[in-house]
Order: sequence, then structure tokens, then C-alpha cells
Amino acid sequence: MYKKQRGINMKSYIKEKLDSFQSENKNRARLLINCADQPGIVAAVSKFLFDHGANIIESNQYSTDPHGGEFFIRIEFEIPNLKEKAKELESDFTAIKEQFALEATFKYVSEVKKIAVFVSKEPHCLLELLWEWQSGDLMADISLVISNHETSREMVESLGIPYYYIPANKEIRREVEEKQKELIEKYQVDVLILARYMQILTPDFVKTYQHQIINIHHSFLPAFIGAKPYERAYNRGVKLIGATSHYVTNDLDEGPIIEQDISRVDHRDNAEAMKKIGQSIERSVLARAVKWHLEDRIIVYGNKTIVF
Amino acid sequence: MYKKQRGINMKSYIKEKLDSFQSENKNRARLLINCADQPGIVAAVSKFLFDHGANIIESNQYSTDPHGGEFFIRIEFEIPNLKEKAKELESDFTAIKEQFALEATFKYVSEVKKIAVFVSKEPHCLLELLWEWQSGDLMADISLVISNHETSREMVESLGIPYYYIPANKEIRREVEEKQKELIEKYQVDVLILARYMQILTPDFVKTYQHQIINIHHSFLPAFIGAKPYERAYNRGVKLIGATSHYVTNDLDEGPIIEQDISRVDHRDNAEAMKKIGQSIERSVLARAVKWHLEDRIIVYGNKTIVF
Amino acid sequence: MYKKQRGINMKSYIKEKLDSFQSENKNRARLLINCADQPGIVAAVSKFLFDHGANIIESNQYSTDPHGGEFFIRIEFEIPNLKEKAKELESDFTAIKEQFALEATFKYVSEVKKIAVFVSKEPHCLLELLWEWQSGDLMADISLVISNHETSREMVESLGIPYYYIPANKEIRREVEEKQKELIEKYQVDVLILARYMQILTPDFVKTYQHQIINIHHSFLPAFIGAKPYERAYNRGVKLIGATSHYVTNDLDEGPIIEQDISRVDHRDNAEAMKKIGQSIERSVLARAVKWHLEDRIIVYGNKTIVF
Amino acid sequence: MYKKQRGINMKSYIKEKLDSFQSENKNRARLLINCADQPGIVAAVSKFLFDHGANIIESNQYSTDPHGGEFFIRIEFEIPNLKEKAKELESDFTAIKEQFALEATFKYVSEVKKIAVFVSKEPHCLLELLWEWQSGDLMADISLVISNHETSREMVESLGIPYYYIPANKEIRREVEEKQKELIEKYQVDVLILARYMQILTPDFVKTYQHQIINIHHSFLPAFIGAKPYERAYNRGVKLIGATSHYVTNDLDEGPIIEQDISRVDHRDNAEAMKKIGQSIERSVLARAVKWHLEDRIIVYGNKTIVF
Repeated sequence: MYKKQRGINMKSYIKEKLDSFQSENKNRARLLINCADQPGIVAAVSKFLFDHGANIIESNQYSTDPHGGEFFIRIEFEIPNLKEKAKELESDFTAIKEQFALEATFKYVSEVKKIAVFVSKEPHCLLELLWEWQSGDLMADISLVISNHETSREMVESLGIPYYYIPANKEIRREVEEKQKELIEKYQVDVLILARYMQILTPDFVKTYQHQIINIHHSFLPAFIGAKPYERAYNRGVKLIGATSHYVTNDLDEGPIIEQDISRVDHRDNAEAMKKIGQSIERSVLARAVKWHLEDRIIVYGNKTIVF
Repeated sequence: MYKKQRGINMKSYIKEKLDSFQSENKNRARLLINCADQPGIVAAVSKFLFDHGANIIESNQYSTDPHGGEFFIRIEFEIPNLKEKAKELESDFTAIKEQFALEATFKYVSEVKKIAVFVSKEPHCLLELLWEWQSGDLMADISLVISNHETSREMVESLGIPYYYIPANKEIRREVEEKQKELIEKYQVDVLILARYMQILTPDFVKTYQHQIINIHHSFLPAFIGAKPYERAYNRGVKLIGATSHYVTNDLDEGPIIEQDISRVDHRDNAEAMKKIGQSIERSVLARAVKWHLEDRIIVYGNKTIVF
Repeated sequence: MYKKQRGINMKSYIKEKLDSFQSENKNRARLLINCADQPGIVAAVSKFLFDHGANIIESNQYSTDPHGGEFFIRIEFEIPNLKEKAKELESDFTAIKEQFALEATFKYVSEVKKIAVFVSKEPHCLLELLWEWQSGDLMADISLVISNHETSREMVESLGIPYYYIPANKEIRREVEEKQKELIEKYQVDVLILARYMQILTPDFVKTYQHQIINIHHSFLPAFIGAKPYERAYNRGVKLIGATSHYVTNDLDEGPIIEQDISRVDHRDNAEAMKKIGQSIERSVLARAVKWHLEDRIIVYGNKTIVF
Repeated sequence: MYKKQRGINMKSYIKEKLDSFQSENKNRARLLINCADQPGIVAAVSKFLFDHGANIIESNQYSTDPHGGEFFIRIEFEIPNLKEKAKELESDFTAIKEQFALEATFKYVSEVKKIAVFVSKEPHCLLELLWEWQSGDLMADISLVISNHETSREMVESLGIPYYYIPANKEIRREVEEKQKELIEKYQVDVLILARYMQILTPDFVKTYQHQIINIHHSFLPAFIGAKPYERAYNRGVKLIGATSHYVTNDLDEGPIIEQDISRVDHRDNAEAMKKIGQSIERSVLARAVKWHLEDRIIVYGNKTIVF
């Protein structure tokens, strides 16, 4: 029996998937807007898109209060030969932007985001991301994995992803982050996923990547903020355990929540059993949050998220 | 201790709630559209609404296929002094309707829908609806209850709702339905809720009230179509039981599904226990379906529903 | 059409259900044991029951640690002519109790528990309990309702249940509780249900009824301990809201958790919407907890519960 | 950076885990009994275990009807030096077996079961099993993988598991099954997992491995028996999709159900999207079913399962 070289093949298999995704979506973009709610925005924006030959694929909007609140809209659309027209499109949009005092961003679907995954010892969240990625369910460029442990090296490298081992602890936090920043810059990373990375980040680091760092916390926040949530859940005798994915801010486990889920436990489940059950929730909650981020579905507003 | 007269008071309490709901929503309407997907619809409709002074409260859209599918949109909006302008609004809209070959309906939120609830012996679904109604969570006029049993009379009448006992069986189906139709006409009913009404309706009756009859079936359809689903679920040894709310068509339990939910069971639950567990699901599934219908959130498309 | 007198009939209808329940279960009892885990307990207890002609209906056991932990067992059984033999049964059991240093209680199913429901303004949890009670799903004697508001009087009295209005506030806490204690004694109440009773109880009161007071808290504890959990959930931007039923201790919202559940919310749900969604969870979580308590399924161990 | 040889290491890593599991459980066994319900069984069995020095770890029982039904019990226990005593234990038990006409089996936890995984093209269920296995959550010997495709070869072989490619189709069913049987015999396989193996098995094959073949079906049975359940779920417009794990019998998708679960879908999810969502349910449902089987928690009774 012929044994294929796993790493190389998987690499080219994934590259192929990404290529075809980019080609299929070469004319697709997303327009994300927020502004003070006021009459006429939707009319103006949809007229603009129509005038520029856009076909609207999906559109979601939300207002915190239709009478003087904040307004949000996400429109996914296609324009033939988008690449050639993108610059003009954005420049034409300036008029509307100014008229309604909009914050607006155009995102191009074929420009897949570059991800750096941070992980410590427990590999389950990293593995879930890699698995979804291999299956073509996570359309991104997983550019590198950074870890303070060697545990996951072979798994990562077998998929052709560079693995950087950077030992870390409290004392050397700044040096460690310097190295990480260099890598993030080198790989032009768009989003940092903390897939059970058990090191506290410095305020400077967090500030540099505002709304770009997604964490998974192993409790249904705001319950069990901080360390050892499963042990504390067990000691409290809860009947549900959960996981929370959120953007990282400088208040520990207090950033805008993207997604949460729970699972039922009972008196027979000790802290160890809760941890096992919880890992399964962590995996799916983080994967959903990352997917929504990659699809530009999440808008951060204050300390909350709108997920379209 | 002073004992209040329950029926009368509750009646006036609910009337008060409805009055205030209608007054709060006197300027609010919903525009429901479906048509062949084509560029420019959203631009045209939103410009139209803007030009007529509308403030958009909520907007949802969906296309079965952005390249030549069917397009659906539901826009909830407010226009000052809507009542005076409604006629003009609808007549002005004719131009757009024709241009894009739209099916379009304006619904006025203050015109609360009139409901007839049909029930047989088991009162749990009726009670849930009455309970949500008393709580102000079901904004409708429950105009009458029709039953082939006397079981729920006192509960219904104590809330000031007329209760009509019409004995029914296979042989007298047409006579029974004639009486029911008279009542429906008399009360100008908009929607018929079969809250565990265990009689088969004739094709004529169903046809008369197309997409106006909502049923609750006590299984997760298409499993266990027909009679005695809990017994059959028990005999099959399923680990989940469910309920399904759907519009009634002339194919038994085959109409467009609005909502479904399930609950876990295990080997210790016999058919009787499953029935008890199931009743709780039936209650909430039907209540959700009815609420969405009252809010004009459901569009029937072929044998499916779009729920905005 | 003859209009029945609702209150009276319902009363007799429920009485009938209770009578038939008691008659069906006249030979049924439950034996609840906890002790240090040690070999031979199950053998001794099951031999004892066999020797006394018992037929075991259900048996559940749990050990915190099979090597030197705490052991719990709940056995439901039937013995012909139980009433005549109960005294002898309990006295014969003394030997085993002493041999294994057991804490053991015999509960007789036909002796249905007497409940006092405490409620403030929001009636949804009370209504759920009454509804389950009417349906024959909550086999108890709801002996009285105590409230610091008049809101639910008519609903309660229409079912033939005495309703006591005892205004309450911080200043008169002790006087209020004296009156409540008198009623509890007068009606020989076994269990107190706080069905959204929004007054803090004094340590003395709580101590008097240890493991007899069941509360429903409107959050998934330990998140949002204390006041206004829905507002705080909304402000935190959570994606799940929940409810928790627990025994009341003198640490606010820190008592042994019996049951919890959650529901999904999103950015469109404001605090008011969360409250509505949450009420539905509160209803079912409290009803489950009460049912388990009535069936003697809950054993409190430290600050946790074992639910068999 | 030193690159470890993945396959070899993982193999030894898993071997280590299994070794330590077997050593930790060398004194642990499970006794599974079913018989006609009759007084005295529990007393006799627990006395027997006590007399043989057993410490009961967990005990679950169930009776289809305490008055003349079928009785089931599963007792997990430890006996010092179990290996030496196992033979005597089983032979001593014969007396009780005969007295109560029991069907009884002793299972020894350290004798981990040998698994053959069957898979076709879609690898998600296989991958989930391998992942749980690597994590130490699936204590079994995955002895071989059999497939009618080459797709998963490298993944499987990289973990040191033999991979057998046996092309299959309707015409050569018997020849294919002959080869499969040889492998099953060669590896002394205890349980066959059909992890999305898309070939029909012959009645002979199924009969040979009664209650030893576990399948995952991609619908909540009995809805959508047979081929293409996601397409049919999409066409029916269901709001929930599900997966079912069951023992294979000769009635297609009609075998005893072990576990089911569902996920919510809506009108935006086409058949392809439902398939993606469904794969995640399939993964977890199959993994749970396999785990319960490995832990001897499942008793097949008629066409149902009791899961302790």
C-alpha cells in the first residue's frame, strides 16, 4: 500500500479549497455601517448600490432605538468585475458617508483573513479550528500558531502551518510579546485567536489589536471569571456549565461577548468530568465565534456585540 | 377580605392592555413583499418609504437564490398620522408594485387580529394561549373559543370570552363546519388556532381559510404523522420527543412548518410520561407560532415558511 | 347553556385527583439514606426490604467517592398494607441504622406535602404551579398563598385556596414573619415556595425552615446574584439568560442549587424582552424543582444537591 | 526546531494511556442482569457481591413494570485481585442465576473492547472518534479501519492504525463482506462502528454481529429513513435537523436507538448548510453512543435500548 505524505498533500488540498473560494467570491463584498439612526439611510445606501450595479445577497440591520438610537447595517453584495471597481466604489461612497456621518467599511470576501492561533497545553480548541479549516468550513489563512508549549507542534506542522514555540511567564511578558508582535507583523495577521492560551496579555498588547483578539473562556460569563472555572462550578454545585467566546479587552474576561453555550451536568460529574464536558462546548463556541468574525458578521458596540 | 369579581375585572384589565397597545402602535405598519429577485427593489422600496416620511423600525429580507430566485422582505416602519395617510400610501405604492411585479401587503399593527381558538378535551395549549394573552404577550383579540367538549368552558368564560360548544364527529362534519363558519363570519375572525382540536377538517373548510389555520401536532414532523404519536414514539424507543406547529393544508400534518421543538426522554419514560413532557413543548411551540403569525413574521412559500 | 361555578368545581376536581393519588399510593414509600460509604449497605438494606415483603419500584444511589466518600441511596418501594406495618418497619430498621451509622428517613407517598406559596407582584411562577397542580402534575396540598400584594388573590381564591395578604417591607420584617410563621404552623406546612417573592427573609426565619424553602432566582447563578439580573444581563451583553431554583440559605442566592436552565437571546433583545423570555424559564425551572422536592428526589449535601 | 515523528509518537502516547487505564481498572468489573421482575433479586445480588468482597461503585436499575415486568440492573464494582478471583466469582454466581432465572454477564473493565471503524468518503465521524480516542475519552483498542475509499488512509495510518481499502458495491457485496469478516476475525473485533459507511450490509452479516454494529444515521429517526435525509429535510421545510445512533438490524434504520440529538435550522439554510450543521450533531451523537457501549451502559430490550 502506498502511503501518501500527509503534510504536503493536506497543504495543497487546503490551498486548492481556498483558491476556489477566492475565485467564487471575487465579486463579493460586505458593507458595514454604523451611525446615528435617521431617516433615509437605507434608501440612500441601497440606491447607491443599485446605481453601482450591485446585487444584494444578504442584508441585516438593527437599531438600538428607532427613535434616536444607533443604527447598524451589514449588506453583502456582488458587483461584476468588483476588483476593478472597488476603488471607485469606495471613493463614490464618500458623499453618502459625509451626508449621514456614517462609519462605514467595505470588506472584500476574497481577501481571506490571516489568523494567528495562540495555544498553551490543551489542544482541543486548536484542533477544532484546524478540523473546521481542513473541512473548508473556516475560510481563512491560518498563517501561524504560537505556543508556550511544544505539545501541538507536530499536528500543526503536519498541516504545513509554521509553529512558533515561545516560552512565557509573568516575568518575561514584555519580551514574549515583542517576539509575538514581530511574528504578527511578519505574517500580516488580521485576527488573533486565543485557543486556550493561558497567559495574561499586557494592556499595550491588547490595545494594539483592539477587537482583533478572540478568546474562549471556559465558563458562561459573567459566572466564574478568572482561573479554574470548572473547579469552582463543581464546588458551587451548578447544574449547567458553559463557555464564552469574547473579544479581549483589558478587563479580565469582561470584553464584548460573541457567543456562549452550555451543557447540562449533574451531581455525578466531578470537576474532571465537567472539564471534559466543557471542552466540547469550548470547541464549538469558539469555532462559531471565529466563523462569524471571518464573515464580518460581528459589530462591536460599547461592550456588546451585534451578530448579524 | 374583599373578593373581586374575577371574570369582569380580567376582561377590563386585558381590554386596557389592548387599548394601550393599539394607541402606542397607531402609527406603525408592516410591509410584506415577495417577488422575483431583481436589482433595485430594496432601493425603490426604501426610497418610497423615505419619501413618505417613514422611519424604519426593523427590516428583514431573504432570497432563495440571489441569482434569479424568489425575494422576500418584511419592513416594519412608523409614519406620523399613519391612519390618515394609509390609503394614499397604498395607492402611491401601486407604481412600484407594477414596476417590479411585486406581491405586497400592508399590515397595520393597531388592527389587532381576531382569533378563534378550537380545542377538544386537553386544555393545555388553550391555557397557554390564554395565559400569554393575559400577560400581554399575545396581542390579539381572542374573539371566541369553539370546542366539541364542555371541559374548558368555565376557564374561558371567566375571562369574558364566548365559548361555543359544538359537538362533532365524522358523520356530522359538514353541519359542524357550517356552524363554525357562521361564528367565524360573525366574529370576523382572522386566524383559527387548533389548540389540540382532535377533529379532521374538510378540504372545503381548509381551502376557505388558507394560511389562516394554525395547528399544533404532538410530534416532530415528519416523524409520527397522524394519530397517537406519543404511543408510537414510545414504541419506537426514541430519545427525543417533539411538537410541530404548522399551517393546515389538506395533506394531513403536511402543511408548512412554522416552528418545532423537542425534549429529551429516556427508557424510564413510558407513553404517559412522554405525553406529559410533550405537553410542555406543545404549549411553547404553539405560542411561538401564534405570536409570529400575529406579528406578520411568517411568509408561506410553497410548502415552507420564511420566519422573519 | 349552563354556566358552572368555577371555583367550587375546580376545588372538588382537584380534591378528587388527590384522593385517587393517595389511594393508588397507599402502599408506597421511599427510603432515603446517607452515610459514610462502606461495603454491605446495599446488601443489608435490600435484604431488609425483601424480608419485609417490599417490592422495589425504583432505586438510585451515588457515592461521592467509592473509596471512603459519602454514600446516598433513595429506594422507592411498595409493601402490602403499608399503613399497618409502617411503625414496625421503621422500628425494625433501627438495627441497620445503628450498624452502619445511617441517616435514614422513610417518606410515605400518600402523605402529600403541604405547600405555602409566597408571591409578590409577578404571578407567572405562581400560575405555573397552580396550572401543574390543576393538571395533576404536582401532587401536593397547596394549603395557602401568602403575598405582599393583592394581585393574585382572585386567581388563587377561584381555586379554593386561601389567600393571605400581608404587606411587607424592610422595617416590619419581623412582624411580617411572625404572621407568616403563625400561618405556616396553622396549616402545618411542609415546604415554602418563593415564587418570585421579592422580600429578604431574616436569618431566623430561614433557619427555622432549613431545606424547606425553595426559591427561584431569575439568573443562571452564580452570575447576577442579587437584584435586577435581567437589566445586568442586558448591560453585560450576554447571549444566554437563565434561571436557578435553589434552597434558601442565609447567603443571598448562594443556597444549594436544585435546577437551572437557560434560553438564547441576541442583540435585539432589550432588558424587557429578556425578562419576558426569562419568565418562561423561571416557570419551568421552579416547577421541576418543586416536583423533585415533592417526590423526595433531592438530597442536600453540603452546599450542593443530589437529585435522584 | 526539532520535528517529531508524529505517527510513531502518537501511537506510543495512546498506548501509554490505555496501559494506565487498564492498570487503574484491573480490579473493576460490571455485572449486567436482566430477568423477570421479582422480589429479592437486588438483595441476593448485593449480598453475593458483599460476600465476595466487592465495593459497589455505581448501580442502576430499571423495571419496565414493577408488577410483573422485565427487570434490568447494571452494577459496577471493584474486588481486590479481581483477575485471580474472576473465574470463581462467575462460577459462584451460577446459583443465583438459576434461582432467579437471570441472564447475567460479567464484563471486565481492563479488557478494553476492540473496534473496527467502517467509513466511506465523509471522514467527520471517524475523525471525531479518533480525536476522542487520542484525548483518552474513548477507552478502546481501535484495531483497524475499513473503507471503500482511500480518503482517510493517511489520517488513520499516521496514528498507527491499519487501514484496509476494500472497494464495494451492490454486485460484490458478499465478497466484500467475506474480506471484512476475515479482518474482524483476525483482529478479534468486539464492536463495529459504521461511521458514515454508505453501503448496505447483508442480513447474514448483520445477524453475525447482533447488537455489535453501531450506526449513525443523519436524521432524527423515524423521520427521513433511508437516503438523502438532509435534502428531504430541506424540502419538507423542517426547523430542526438531527442525527440518530442505533444498533443495526435488518430493517433499514429501524434498529434500537441509542442516542439522538438535534440542531435548529431556519429558512436561510439550504440542504448544503443543513448537511454542515448536521455533521456536527452526527459527530457528537455517535461519539456518545460508542462511549456508552464501551462502558457497557446499554442494554437492548426488544427494539429499544436502556441506557444506564
